[in-house]
Amino acid sequence: MYTLAIDVMGGDNAPDSVIEGLSRVYSSCLDFSFHLFGDEPTITKLLKTNNLPSDTSQIVIHHADNVLSDAEKPATALRNSAGTSMRRAIEAVKDGTCSAVVSAGNTGAYMALCKVILKTMPDIDRPALVGLMPARNRACVMLDVGANIGSTPLQLLQFSVFGRAYATCMLNIESPTVGLLNIGTEDMKGTDDVRETKALMEHKMPKDRFVGFVEANDIFENRADVVITDGFNGNISIKTAEGVLKLMRRDLKSALQTSPLARLAAWFLGRNLRAFEKTLDPRNYNGAPLLGLTKLAMKSHGGADAHAFANCLQISMQLVKKELITRIADSLKKDT
Amino acid sequence: MYTLAIDVMGGDNAPDSVIEGLSRVYSSCLDFSFHLFGDEPTITKLLKTNNLPSDTSQIVIHHADNVLSDAEKPATALRNSAGTSMRRAIEAVKDGTCSAVVSAGNTGAYMALCKVILKTMPDIDRPALVGLMPARNRACVMLDVGANIGSTPLQLLQFSVFGRAYATCMLNIESPTVGLLNIGTEDMKGTDDVRETKALMEHKMPKDRFVGFVEANDIFENRADVVITDGFNGNISIKTAEGVLKLMRRDLKSALQTSPLARLAAWFLGRNLRAFEKTLDPRNYNGAPLLGLTKLAMKSHGGADAHAFANCLQISMQLVKKELITRIADSLKKDT
Repeated sequence: MYTLAIDVMGGDNAPDSVIEGLSRVYSSCLDFSFHLFGDEPTITKLLKTNNLPSDTSQIVIHHADNVLSDAEKPATALRNSAGTSMRRAIEAVKDGTCSAVVSAGNTGAYMALCKVILKTMPDIDRPALVGLMPARNRACVMLDVGANIGSTPLQLLQFSVFGRAYATCMLNIESPTVGLLNIGTEDMKGTDDVRETKALMEHKMPKDRFVGFVEANDIFENRADVVITDGFNGNISIKTAEGVLKLMRRDLKSALQTSPLARLAAWFLGRNLRAFEKTLDPRNYNGAPLLGLTKLAMKSHGGADAHAFANCLQISMQLVKKELITRIADSLKKDT
Repeated sequence: MYTLAIDVMGGDNAPDSVIEGLSRVYSSCLDFSFHLFGDEPTITKLLKTNNLPSDTSQIVIHHADNVLSDAEKPATALRNSAGTSMRRAIEAVKDGTCSAVVSAGNTGAYMALCKVILKTMPDIDRPALVGLMPARNRACVMLDVGANIGSTPLQLLQFSVFGRAYATCMLNIESPTVGLLNIGTEDMKGTDDVRETKALMEHKMPKDRFVGFVEANDIFENRADVVITDGFNGNISIKTAEGVLKLMRRDLKSALQTSPLARLAAWFLGRNLRAFEKTLDPRNYNGAPLLGLTKLAMKSHGGADAHAFANCLQISMQLVKKELITRIADSLKKDT
């Protein structure tokens, strides 16, 4: 049986959204056991509200007295996190009780704790946060979307190894292609760093798997399966996409409700529009692994509701089953 | 009468898209005269095809033998551009024949030529390219969207002066607010440069007009009227938005055409959906001024079709009438 450690107390809508999110995936995940870290009375009550059992080997409650504050800075997180639900969930992965950890809590502190407790893989300096972007034919993998500010060409090359393994596990792409994000596709475009990274990738990657520079609009056209960039630009890009999707979703909703006739027509459109709305819904992209660590650590958006958190749980379980971490370790041995 | 210099030959779909674009706005712009630079026989023929007169003071053809190539690099553009339609259109603004220049040609070369020929305003090192992003209540102004890579805090402060004047002219906002793009809103977030820029803006800008750091998703929520960032991040953000809009537009179209019933319902939704589709259409945001120069230079997207180019012309005319350049010059004298 696979095991997942869940920080029940982390996130703007926690703990309610976390347990309700769990209830949405629970019945379809009988091969998983969920270890819940947080305030025991609260968890027990919420399990009951959501019709989840508390007396089964599939759900194990670990009481944690404290919650890590949103104001906690990465630099002091280790010192101030003892006994928090987040830290105890991470430690459960460290000591082998669980295969992966999921949290919607303070991102900076979570990344710092994961790095210190779970450790990076050999020769990896920094973990990267991976995002999924909607695209024409299938989603596009992007990293780093915010774990680091400024990365060296070697680190970006390592990110491409993480990203390719992730694309294989998540999207079933056997040998994914990689593009490097830039503000133009010509050789002379961009900063010295981005040009140096391109040269390194050309030298180190299989020739037909590296497509060179891609622009931000290319992400949505599947010009590459994996797009590599540093955490600053990746964060700007993924949050821009999130903002546009949210705006469009609201605009579409109001367009469909301006009159009784519009509402009727929208009802007729039914299934087709629902599929479109699904693409517009950022909650369906929630759940990003922090890669480069010796274990699987998943980050949910802090503002996730139950739907979004359930999506994050589903991605987590898929990545555990597909053995993403083993795959990355193997690729690193082979590729670099 | 106002005058506009148009580079008829620049752009992927030029010259057809340029003249057809002109034909879409021509009849509503009787207070403008258009100076067309390019191959005279071609222009004459296209004017005829589009039912535009060639024997009026409102349309003046200036024959240019050459077209600036898309492969021309900014560094060599000045040397190799003599007699091209782009350069002659820029020179017509320099010598006072026209009030503003519009081109859809090679962006890098255009910016280099504009900078050398039209010159920057006193104490301005570099011009910036301005973009408009769709947002909740009204569009959001963003700059720089790609004229520069890496800008100093002082340059970013100057960009905020350009952006505020532009927001006033384009969106009728009397005293626009400014936000600085970052990957988080907390003080400690981001690079040293972005934190230093924040300190400078806090010191130099009216207190209630500077909202501090904004994240990329805030752009679409009108957290600030003007969002300042360097050309690399701004380009990533605007092209991400463009890519998402294009993807959504295609998805919506196909959702509305999957069955005869869907097509019927879409027809009933009519006006409401068309308004929504308009928001999705990046052509309605085409046309960006290059600011910081002594004259108005407008850049159209290279891939613009007639609809997009017409939009760029309309923005250009609005900015000429509202005297954007004078407004920026006055603000610079006052603010810095």
